[in-house]
Amino acid sequence: MKLTILGCSSAFPKNNSFTSSQLLEINGKCFLIDCGEGTQVQLRRYGVKLNSIENIFISHLHGDHFFGLPGLISTLKLLGRIKPLNVYGPTGIKKAITLLLKLGGSWTNYDLHFHELNSTKSTVLLENSKFKIQTIPLSHRIYTNGFLFTEIKNEKKLLIQNVENYNIDKTQYRGIKLGKDGISLNGELVKNSLLTKPKEEDKSYAYCSDTCFFPEIIPIIKNSTVLYHESTFLECHKEIANMTKHSTAREAAEIAKQANVEMLILGHFSSRYNNLDDFKTEAELVFSNVELSNDGKTFNI
Amino acid sequence: MKLTILGCSSAFPKNNSFTSSQLLEINGKCFLIDCGEGTQVQLRRYGVKLNSIENIFISHLHGDHFFGLPGLISTLKLLGRIKPLNVYGPTGIKKAITLLLKLGGSWTNYDLHFHELNSTKSTVLLENSKFKIQTIPLSHRIYTNGFLFTEIKNEKKLLIQNVENYNIDKTQYRGIKLGKDGISLNGELVKNSLLTKPKEEDKSYAYCSDTCFFPEIIPIIKNSTVLYHESTFLECHKEIANMTKHSTAREAAEIAKQANVEMLILGHFSSRYNNLDDFKTEAELVFSNVELSNDGKTFNI
Repeated sequence: MKLTILGCSSAFPKNNSFTSSQLLEINGKCFLIDCGEGTQVQLRRYGVKLNSIENIFISHLHGDHFFGLPGLISTLKLLGRIKPLNVYGPTGIKKAITLLLKLGGSWTNYDLHFHELNSTKSTVLLENSKFKIQTIPLSHRIYTNGFLFTEIKNEKKLLIQNVENYNIDKTQYRGIKLGKDGISLNGELVKNSLLTKPKEEDKSYAYCSDTCFFPEIIPIIKNSTVLYHESTFLECHKEIANMTKHSTAREAAEIAKQANVEMLILGHFSSRYNNLDDFKTEAELVFSNVELSNDGKTFNI
Repeated sequence: MKLTILGCSSAFPKNNSFTSSQLLEINGKCFLIDCGEGTQVQLRRYGVKLNSIENIFISHLHGDHFFGLPGLISTLKLLGRIKPLNVYGPTGIKKAITLLLKLGGSWTNYDLHFHELNSTKSTVLLENSKFKIQTIPLSHRIYTNGFLFTEIKNEKKLLIQNVENYNIDKTQYRGIKLGKDGISLNGELVKNSLLTKPKEEDKSYAYCSDTCFFPEIIPIIKNSTVLYHESTFLECHKEIANMTKHSTAREAAEIAKQANVEMLILGHFSSRYNNLDDFKTEAELVFSNVELSNDGKTFNI
């Protein structure tokens, strides 16, 4: 999986940082997570083909997480998109986008499917042999979901030297990766375990924004490879964080620790802070592997 | 008047150019004309205090002219705005913005007044002793207005040497500028015509976007100081221009010529063109004083 941060400011865009949006690529498939104003500009800036996006996940209906969506949907039409687009987001999102398009006297040329969410339980949105995507119900001022993306590693890795030594032809490779035994040139059966290394562990990426400190998510995100957790504030502004149902860097780190994730990415920073390193410093008091978001920054997961 | 181009791309934003938005300052008052996605970013980039805007004029409800409005309205709230904001735009704009704000579970702290437009006749929207703003009904695929801004020059200019020679004290200056006679130190009446130059002519700025070639606007914009007229296409794509109810550079120039304006600014360029100088060249075959829009470019009117 490859994650690209398209925007990580809270509330409103700044000169050098846009509001929430991320692109996650799993096995060449592109998933857009949140879509703040200007996301289509950021996608272009970072070389993403707009048409490669097939599924968009909107956490909640605050403007800094979805005011870029109507523009992106319109632009995809103008670019001649044919293939369908799926939008997952809170109930109400369909009415909003529909109204905006109708006011403009137009509709999309492609199929636009809205999947409206209202459950407060974790729900599987998409699942196949390669990935699984489910909601992470969060606690914010309005109905909000995070999203857990799991890349399923269902292929073993070939021990290529052994495969060649046993004279196994290439047509069998795919079957062997999926667990079948091999047959050598002279008809001998070769046990799969002699030809492969065990498959890698599944990788997972948990996106949690916006939310207050909410340990109820821990069973869902337990042992994730990477956790993105909002940290709008530092502990010195904990009162405002509580009042607005946001988290501090320390609280995000507490979640990362309890969930036993491998890495924590912080983001959704309030514009009141000039030095973002303070977020890293605060979080590292609790959890060691912390990274800061930055527009354009990428992470291999 | 001072005009700042905030965006002049048609359809969708590009890496180096945003969609339609302009800031017009008349006597220190700020008027925003159209508000494509990312306008709030552009305002910051060009050093405009967001809170200085009191009136916003939306030409029509295509996304490239108003998808930045919900974000700007939300941001003004977050910045603690108190003073009212007036939004002039086609019927439907209130429902759209209201729905988006309600989905986010919030409203503005300041008074937000919508003035919905549906007349196909030129209508005065704002008028006082210093300026007048009226609609310019245009012809596009959906209901669209341009806007004519007139700066009323109601003060004569003092002939400062004469005023001093007649020993007229400064407390009388304002009255003299407005046409009163002066009284010298020794009580002598001095005719206003001896103390002032005639007042300057009113200045006017006509914004016409989006529209097909539509000579019906000429009586409204006749003798304007500056005309901004959309030129989405060049003559080589006139068929597409006709089909989509846009104008070519030549057609914009034809309007400028017939309306006898002093200067024509072209904008709303289609992304298919790499060399915008072709727009200037084409227009100059018909009308001599042509300028091209550019994000961040300013014009003193």
